[in-house]
Amino acid sequence: VFKARMGLGATRSSGRCPCPWQCSLNWITFKGWVRSVRSQKEVLFLHINDGSSLESLQVVADPSLEKRDLTFGSAVEVQGKLVKSPHKMQNMELQAETIHVVGPCDIWSFPLKMKERHPLEYVRQFPHLRCRNNTLGALLRIRSEATASIHSFFQDNGYVHIHTPIITSNDCEGAGELFQIEVSWAKESVEKSHFFNVPAFLTVSGQLHLEVMAGAFTHVFTFGPTFRAENSQSRRHLAEFYMVEAELSFTESLQDIMQVMEDLFKTVTSTVLSKCPRDVELFHKYVAPAQKDRLEQILKHKFMMPLLLSLQWGCDLQTEHEKYLVKHCGEVPVFVVNYPYDLKPFYMRDNEDGPQHTVAAVDLLVPGVGELCGGSLREERLPFLESRLQRYLDLRKFGSVPHGGFGMGFERYLQYILGVDNIKDVIPFPRFSHSCLL
Amino acid sequence: VFKARMGLGATRSSGRCPCPWQCSLNWITFKGWVRSVRSQKEVLFLHINDGSSLESLQVVADPSLEKRDLTFGSAVEVQGKLVKSPHKMQNMELQAETIHVVGPCDIWSFPLKMKERHPLEYVRQFPHLRCRNNTLGALLRIRSEATASIHSFFQDNGYVHIHTPIITSNDCEGAGELFQIEVSWAKESVEKSHFFNVPAFLTVSGQLHLEVMAGAFTHVFTFGPTFRAENSQSRRHLAEFYMVEAELSFTESLQDIMQVMEDLFKTVTSTVLSKCPRDVELFHKYVAPAQKDRLEQILKHKFMMPLLLSLQWGCDLQTEHEKYLVKHCGEVPVFVVNYPYDLKPFYMRDNEDGPQHTVAAVDLLVPGVGELCGGSLREERLPFLESRLQRYLDLRKFGSVPHGGFGMGFERYLQYILGVDNIKDVIPFPRFSHSCLL
Repeated sequence: VFKARMGLGATRSSGRCPCPWQCSLNWITFKGWVRSVRSQKEVLFLHINDGSSLESLQVVADPSLEKRDLTFGSAVEVQGKLVKSPHKMQNMELQAETIHVVGPCDIWSFPLKMKERHPLEYVRQFPHLRCRNNTLGALLRIRSEATASIHSFFQDNGYVHIHTPIITSNDCEGAGELFQIEVSWAKESVEKSHFFNVPAFLTVSGQLHLEVMAGAFTHVFTFGPTFRAENSQSRRHLAEFYMVEAELSFTESLQDIMQVMEDLFKTVTSTVLSKCPRDVELFHKYVAPAQKDRLEQILKHKFMMPLLLSLQWGCDLQTEHEKYLVKHCGEVPVFVVNYPYDLKPFYMRDNEDGPQHTVAAVDLLVPGVGELCGGSLREERLPFLESRLQRYLDLRKFGSVPHGGFGMGFERYLQYILGVDNIKDVIPFPRFSHSCLL
Repeated sequence: VFKARMGLGATRSSGRCPCPWQCSLNWITFKGWVRSVRSQKEVLFLHINDGSSLESLQVVADPSLEKRDLTFGSAVEVQGKLVKSPHKMQNMELQAETIHVVGPCDIWSFPLKMKERHPLEYVRQFPHLRCRNNTLGALLRIRSEATASIHSFFQDNGYVHIHTPIITSNDCEGAGELFQIEVSWAKESVEKSHFFNVPAFLTVSGQLHLEVMAGAFTHVFTFGPTFRAENSQSRRHLAEFYMVEAELSFTESLQDIMQVMEDLFKTVTSTVLSKCPRDVELFHKYVAPAQKDRLEQILKHKFMMPLLLSLQWGCDLQTEHEKYLVKHCGEVPVFVVNYPYDLKPFYMRDNEDGPQHTVAAVDLLVPGVGELCGGSLREERLPFLESRLQRYLDLRKFGSVPHGGFGMGFERYLQYILGVDNIKDVIPFPRFSHSCLL
């Protein structure tokens, strides 16, 4: 682990040892922030963290090197020799020759305290400092790794990445909960709506734009921010959140869509588990103790599909139903398919199992989080779509193909694999009603 | 090239040949859109493209398989045997046994025509169909590859990826040209500004949020959309565009920042050139014929820095100055450093070469595009920043370190390497004043 950090973190710079023999071996400068100071009679111990991993580097120094501003939270540059540590807790330690305090830390006003396990609710108050907390640090490293892994998954499977637009004049879901965009410098409301000539909104989904692209590249994906102006203080909703969306042409079966969802989940999760073992361990040890074994089980088995769902026809699944279903199946991810026609948007494909009876829709439900992914086959047949948006129809007129796709909420994904209760703790800068800090 | 497509494009499905020996070898189903139909007396030739590469697969069939709706633009599924082609133009061809028109194309109203090289201005009118055009198709594949390569570059160099927020209550550049966000369902203007309790805007830069994160992870980057409400119809500006931004702690020299800019440019460009040779060739052949040799030269040499700049003190560089500089240096990328103090924002580091004389700022200018990257060392010293934003100051109180960073306009990058004149042609769905199509 230590090796990985030394390779990755570019805060290390090697040089020549100032000893008479000028040995260059293991003489380094390490830069980071002090996580602990322990001063003993004969020796001064420091732990320095540079954010490239959860582990800090132990520094051993002569007590004469201690200074007044060498405190918890200060930024330091330490020069010395990297040697094998006699302690079991770490591989290596740094025998310091010089310690330079680059930036002192006002510990009285610094809200993080040495060796304290602050609750997530507490650190959430400090959007500009909470990344210095171990839990948030681990989370953001995992988020970064998961992001890279999502890009690789699709790239490796021949998908073209598309930057779908953030500002749009469409309203994909027909939802009323949109953010509208205006220019800040216009005084009159008439002037305000003149920038784009049409009312413009923040996107709620990249699906329609992906459908355009799937009509040229066959397999496409996007991974970007989406928005809902929901006045909700729920632990599962944000005003700004990230969504992974994929669209596949020449797809005639929901099974194909479900297979991609499952492969995506398993590939990304395996990568995160193997690339960030210590960071993930923090969550599976202190935040959600049972999650580790459950995840490992889930990675080994096929996702489930409930065979029969007894519910009043035409009622949508409520959170309670979702919870029951997932529990009934043994607290594992569950696919629910073929929703009533009237509950779903116009672009979903009619199953033709009766007059406007069900559509080829699928949701992936996971324990603790609820709906993680939602997808469907799209209606590719022109007559089924007539009297709708002209451009959407155009896509069906020039080489229309059966296709489908899905979206996965990235924050919900992180909540689920790490067992984090509140969605505000899995995004760097959460935005929700009444809160837009920084 | 063909092999690459067959490996990547998942539109192929192999099966068993219906011959008496049921040989499985090379029996495939290929799915895509018809790019050309050529019917001869004895044989029917088709070119089918599935968007995974510029090349189409040649299909050879018996004329009896021709149907009325097998036209340019239609979507087809072809089953047959993949064999070595006797023609020089391609490696392989498909001897069709069956051809199924999945989605016909109304060729009379389809704005793209067979074998025609439509100008970029023409296809720009059809945001939902222009990706079916060869040039735009190639561009979007290159954009996807460049995106992946940017993520890899930073990941490989130990940077943590951060999703900096889109909605923010800050105004990084102090610019007036902001988009403001309101909820669409509120009727009163008082109600409208109540969603976040404060006025909220679309981000113009992730820099301040990256600075927060660089104070924990040392090296961080972001790659997302940014916005300007500039009422400009220029070929270099968009209302919504993508920016790559990096921030590095413990950085005391502009040289370090410039090195990252140069490495990023060279690594990503080399990757794009080697991974999308045919797509890039299209641009370097038809769009900007001289660009290929120039790029190859640039990849071999260090970027330049103009030694002396004679200009009236305190004047900012105008487009004409930038052009002259780049030309003077031989049409290569040029770094311009140390701008007058008064021209730059508060967070840039005072060079202390006189009372508020210059700041440690750097711009990277490239031929044809102008400013590609802008960066600076940030002012890490508390006294220099006092009387500014409290949170920004807080970051200097708890372990402040010298740091710096930069941003690169992703569309301008693509414009430059491909020689594309208009920025609207290097983004999937361009947004600019008076235009927000789809």
